[in-house]
Amino acid sequence: MKAELLYEGKAKKVYQAQGQQGKLVLAYKNDATAFNGEKKATFIGKGRLNNEISSRIFEYLRDKEMESHFIQQLNETEQLVHKTEIIPLEVVVRNLATGSITKRLGIDEGKELHPPLVELYYKKDELGDPLINDDQAYFLTEITPSELQEIKTKALQINQLLMELFTGLNVLLVDFKLEFGKMGDTIILSDEISPDTCRLWDKDTKEKLDKDVFRQNTGNLITVYEEVLNRLEANV
Amino acid sequence: MKAELLYEGKAKKVYQAQGQQGKLVLAYKNDATAFNGEKKATFIGKGRLNNEISSRIFEYLRDKEMESHFIQQLNETEQLVHKTEIIPLEVVVRNLATGSITKRLGIDEGKELHPPLVELYYKKDELGDPLINDDQAYFLTEITPSELQEIKTKALQINQLLMELFTGLNVLLVDFKLEFGKMGDTIILSDEISPDTCRLWDKDTKEKLDKDVFRQNTGNLITVYEEVLNRLEANV
Ligand SMILES: Nc1ncnc2c1ncn2[C@@H]1O[C@H](COP(=O)(O)OP(=O)(O)O)[C@@H](O)[C@H]1O
Ligand SMILES: Nc1ncnc2c1ncn2[C@@H]1O[C@H](COP(=O)(O)OP(=O)(O)O)[C@@H](O)[C@H]1O
Ligand SMILES: [Mg+2]
Ligand SMILES: [Mg+2]
Repeated sequence: MKAELLYEGKAKKVYQAQGQQGKLVLAYKNDATAFNGEKKATFIGKGRLNNEISSRIFEYLRDKEMESHFIQQLNETEQLVHKTEIIPLEVVVRNLATGSITKRLGIDEGKELHPPLVELYYKKDELGDPLINDDQAYFLTEITPSELQEIKTKALQINQLLMELFTGLNVLLVDFKLEFGKMGDTIILSDEISPDTCRLWDKDTKEKLDKDVFRQNTGNLITVYEEVLNRLEANV
Repeated sequence: MKAELLYEGKAKKVYQAQGQQGKLVLAYKNDATAFNGEKKATFIGKGRLNNEISSRIFEYLRDKEMESHFIQQLNETEQLVHKTEIIPLEVVVRNLATGSITKRLGIDEGKELHPPLVELYYKKDELGDPLINDDQAYFLTEITPSELQEIKTKALQINQLLMELFTGLNVLLVDFKLEFGKMGDTIILSDEISPDTCRLWDKDTKEKLDKDVFRQNTGNLITVYEEVLNRLEANV
C-alpha cells in the first residue's frame, strides 16, 4: 500500500499511496512530544490508539456529512487519506479555558467560553506555532478572506458535531486543534483528531483523557487513550 | 483648569477638568518606560514635546475630519480632551515590519506590509499587553463586532492620513498604536499619538525618530522628539 516516505512528522509518517496518485498513507507513530518538541517519549500502542480513534472520529464526521481527507483505515496504525495542500494554520476551538490561554489572557481555569473561541496559530515549529490574527494569516499564508471564513465556519460545525459525540461518551470536549488543506479550490479537513489534538475531560470526575497526562505527568497515556477508544467503540 | 487627579499612567496624569463635566486634562509627564515598565527613565522636556506633537497631530486629524477626544492644547504640557470610556485594546497598525513582530512571526526587518497589518493587544499591564484575535477581544471586552469593524476601519483611515502627513515631513510611518474610547454609542479616537506610540524613521537615513532610541539606547530621546516637532511645525 505504501510507496515512498514523503515526510516524517512528530506524530505520523506520511507515505505516497502505492499506485494511487493523490492519496497518502498516514502511519501513526508511538512518539509523543510536547512543549514544542522539548519533551519527548515513546509509548507502545499509542500509534494504534490514535489511528483507531482518529478513524472512528472521521467516520463519525462523514456520517454527519462533514467531509474530510479520510478515506479508510488500512490496518492497526495506518489510514488512507486524500492528499491535500496543507494550509499552515492550526485552527483551535475552545469550549472551556485551560492551558496556555488561562495564563496568557488571565482567564480562570475551566471557565466556559460561550460562544466558543476560535484561534489561529501559525504552524511553524521554528517559531513555536505563535498565535496570529486574521490579518497576519493573510500575510503569512496564501489563504483568502472567504477561505478563512469557510474554515472558521467548518471549525465551529465540527465543534458542534464533536460535542454531540463526546457528550454521548460522558466526555467534555474542552478544546481541540484542526488542520485544513486544499484540494483544488475546496477546503478539506485534514490531519488527525485524537487525544493528541483534543483536550477531553471525563464529565463526572474531570479526569483528563488526553495528552495533558503526558505534558503534566499526571497519568498513563496509554490507559487514558484506551479509555477514549473504548468509549468511542461502545458508542459509534 | 485641573480638579482632582483621576489616574496616573506611565506617560500622563489624567485630571478632571475644573467645572467641566465630561472633560479631562491630560498632563504629559517626563517619564519614559519600555518593555512593559521594566526600563524607566525621566527626560526633561519629554512631556512638553509629546503634548505639542500629539496636539499638532490631533489638530491635523481634525482638519481632515477625523474626530477625536482632543479639544485643545492648554499649555506646554497639558491638553483638554473629552472624557471617553477607554476600550482596553491597543490597536496597532503596521506598514513596515520591525520590533516584536519580526522575531515572533519570522518576518524580515523592514519588510513592507501591504495591506497594512492591524493588530489588537489586550491593554492589561499585568499580562504584558498580549496580542489577541477578534474572538478573544469579544470575550475579554464589551466590544461588539460592528464596533470592532468601525475601529479597524478608523485605524486604517488614520493610517492613511498620518502617512500623508509624515510623507510630507520626509518621515516613514513604520507603525503606531491607537486607543479608542466610547462616548455614549460613539467610538472616539483617544489617548495620544506621539513618538512614544509611533515608530518614525527618517526617509533618507532611516534614523529612528521615536522611543526606540530609548528602548535600544541608540540616541538622545529629546533630540529626536524635537526633530519630529520641528518638522511638524514647519509643515502643519
Ligand atoms: N491529507 C493530508 N495531505 C497532506 N498532508 C497531510 C494531510 N494530513 C496531514 N498532513 C500533514 O502530515 C504531517 C505529519 O503529521 P504530524 O506527524 O502530525 O506532523 P507535525 O510534526 O508537522 O505535526 C503534518 O505536517 C500534517 O500537516
Ligand atoms: N479621552 C480619554 N478619556 C479617558 N481616559 C483616557 C482618555 N485618553 C487617554 N486616556 C487614558 O489615560 C490613561 C493615562 O495615559 P498613560 O499615561 O499613557 O497610561 P498607561 O500607563 O495606561 O498607558 C491611559 O489609561 C489612557 O487609556
Ligand atoms: Mg501534527
Ligand atoms: Mg499609555
